[in-house]
Amino acid sequence: MVVHLQARMSESDDSAAKKIKLDSSQREEHVDWKKWKGERKAVKKQWKEDKLIKQLEKQNTSDVDCEEEAANEHDHNRPSNKGRPYTVSVALPGSVLDNAQSTELRTYLAGQIARACSVFCVDEIIIFDEYGEDVKSVEGEFTGVKKKGQACIQLARILQYLECPQYLRKWFFPKHQDLQYAGLCNPLDSPHHMRIDEEAEYREGIVLDRPTKPGKGSLVNCGMRKDVQIDKQLQSGLRVTVHLKKTENESKICKGVVVAPHVPRTEGGLYWGYNVRLASSLSDVFTDGPYEDGYDMTIGTSERGSDIDHTTLSPFKHLLVMFGGLQGLETSLDADQKLNVTDPAVLFDHYLNTCPSQGSRTIRTEEAILISMAVLRHKITSAFSDIQQKC
Amino acid sequence: MVVHLQARMSESDDSAAKKIKLDSSQREEHVDWKKWKGERKAVKKQWKEDKLIKQLEKQNTSDVDCEEEAANEHDHNRPSNKGRPYTVSVALPGSVLDNAQSTELRTYLAGQIARACSVFCVDEIIIFDEYGEDVKSVEGEFTGVKKKGQACIQLARILQYLECPQYLRKWFFPKHQDLQYAGLCNPLDSPHHMRIDEEAEYREGIVLDRPTKPGKGSLVNCGMRKDVQIDKQLQSGLRVTVHLKKTENESKICKGVVVAPHVPRTEGGLYWGYNVRLASSLSDVFTDGPYEDGYDMTIGTSERGSDIDHTTLSPFKHLLVMFGGLQGLETSLDADQKLNVTDPAVLFDHYLNTCPSQGSRTIRTEEAILISMAVLRHKITSAFSDIQQKC
Repeated sequence: MVVHLQARMSESDDSAAKKIKLDSSQREEHVDWKKWKGERKAVKKQWKEDKLIKQLEKQNTSDVDCEEEAANEHDHNRPSNKGRPYTVSVALPGSVLDNAQSTELRTYLAGQIARACSVFCVDEIIIFDEYGEDVKSVEGEFTGVKKKGQACIQLARILQYLECPQYLRKWFFPKHQDLQYAGLCNPLDSPHHMRIDEEAEYREGIVLDRPTKPGKGSLVNCGMRKDVQIDKQLQSGLRVTVHLKKTENESKICKGVVVAPHVPRTEGGLYWGYNVRLASSLSDVFTDGPYEDGYDMTIGTSERGSDIDHTTLSPFKHLLVMFGGLQGLETSLDADQKLNVTDPAVLFDHYLNTCPSQGSRTIRTEEAILISMAVLRHKITSAFSDIQQKC
Repeated sequence: MVVHLQARMSESDDSAAKKIKLDSSQREEHVDWKKWKGERKAVKKQWKEDKLIKQLEKQNTSDVDCEEEAANEHDHNRPSNKGRPYTVSVALPGSVLDNAQSTELRTYLAGQIARACSVFCVDEIIIFDEYGEDVKSVEGEFTGVKKKGQACIQLARILQYLECPQYLRKWFFPKHQDLQYAGLCNPLDSPHHMRIDEEAEYREGIVLDRPTKPGKGSLVNCGMRKDVQIDKQLQSGLRVTVHLKKTENESKICKGVVVAPHVPRTEGGLYWGYNVRLASSLSDVFTDGPYEDGYDMTIGTSERGSDIDHTTLSPFKHLLVMFGGLQGLETSLDADQKLNVTDPAVLFDHYLNTCPSQGSRTIRTEEAILISMAVLRHKITSAFSDIQQKC
């Protein structure tokens, strides 16, 4: 059986959140890590300089700007104060699934990861192959769910399934052995999982295969009692994010405009689920990201990292937080043949112990996500509230 | 079948950690809540005054004291700098188990709670009856494990089982249907779960049923290759905490002294597992505690609480952190007929939202423990490090 993928439609040219990537990169060449890091630093430096210049410009006209921004809150051409300007990505090895004792618990563990990421508004989950088997594609015969093996793909599929609003699942997730026990997982209950009668500014939907009159847009099922007519004609079967227009109660259909999946976050400040990306090695987590300039803030977590309590974060555009598997990030690094470093600390801006004085010799990855993100949450909001206060 | 209890021996007169209480209180009278709170405040005020006086006294002789303490680090009559002077208790309703979809997952959830508490060095877990069925005893016929019902006792039993070092379980936990799936739970791997050849200052053990010569102490199995002869004769079957003496390799047995279960914490600074207590209602959590002066710092957690980021903690002796069940602490409070208050905030020193801006409409209790304790951990250590800095 061929593995089915779920594609997400994007209306903007922002390729960042364009679609869920379940196929890993085709990069073949050996990465010169030092060169790559140097380039990244230069890009980052440039970005910081640009930001400082912008801040200076802003200060000169700050009062005027602040008022203006408030007035333009509903202007879709620029982010409003309500929106969240940054993204948070979490990376972990798929092998964590092998740390479960039964097929049911293997699925439940995937559900725990999905929930932990949702609770902390994570925008992207990257599953990397710790054993460096270099999976290039998910095409091909699928041999069924097993206790061990194919952990990365199974984790990715369950995470995608749980992220998808319930009313869309029947279209995007045909019956599959990987999802056999997905019913045991606790629902994410995130803001984009709407109830049928819930009034909402944005909704996820699927383009329907229905004939439409020329000049009129396609019909979309957004999990409401009425279908939604969007502003343009799109291929049926696409998953789209729709900005709904307020309509009269009497009309038979609703009207809406297709927007990029990031719009509910950047303009509405809403958490809008996560994308799932597969990486064939630890280094591909950094190099194959969806953001043009990469992740401008990276955090590695380890018992051997420095105490998180003594760390403050500066503002960022795209944060990456990486977790190790059973044996920690050190082991994941050893398996990566593209990287010629031995100390994981050099890969990250911060290498942190997020749970000093732990009362257990080990912390499981699904626990580490909740613990680390709980502590980081405040540090992230502090980084950005400092900026707002300056305005 | 009568429910078996596990008793823990204590050598000191500190009744705090004397034994695991699986029977709930016999209190019958209606609690005058306002009066009780007033009394508690008075006790607390007195304690704070005493502390201030002590601090003043200390300042006068601070330098001398600091040196003296360092010199007395190995004096067992007073707590050394290494020790942890305070305790942390976590309270939650047993009904959280009913939020699991199968008997296996019900057990797994109990295991998640045990691990969350261990990771954050929780000393006492209190399971309260949210439905106020006022269970007075665990004696009586046990009707077997079910998906629903008897959640409090089942949770207590699994928590006790997981806390007990593996080598002692065969004695304290005979086969029981509540523990049918306990093998699925992830081990706590806490410091008192010693490996057979691990060298340790303290060990948990069971007094053996072996004849001993007059004037010589009982033999104890501490999970080592050799038995340990303690300093006095005790009833066989008791669980004891033993402070091991360094002995020559040639001797057939080790020697040790029985100490109170809190000694590894207060003198060695080690995390030494948790006690489990059943409370027949929410109010009994406060009034039936093992500490003479009660909990001098109480925290309630709720989405409707105030933002934890704006909260700092002052030092305490005994901290209580309470979590609600499926419907939150508000519902637990409604069910308690002894309490004539409607707003849970008045019951606690702090009523906190430990996860502002959550990306899911609900946070499960097993997740809330990890999230809340992760954020509180730093606030707790800060409260005490401020004191140390003054020394």
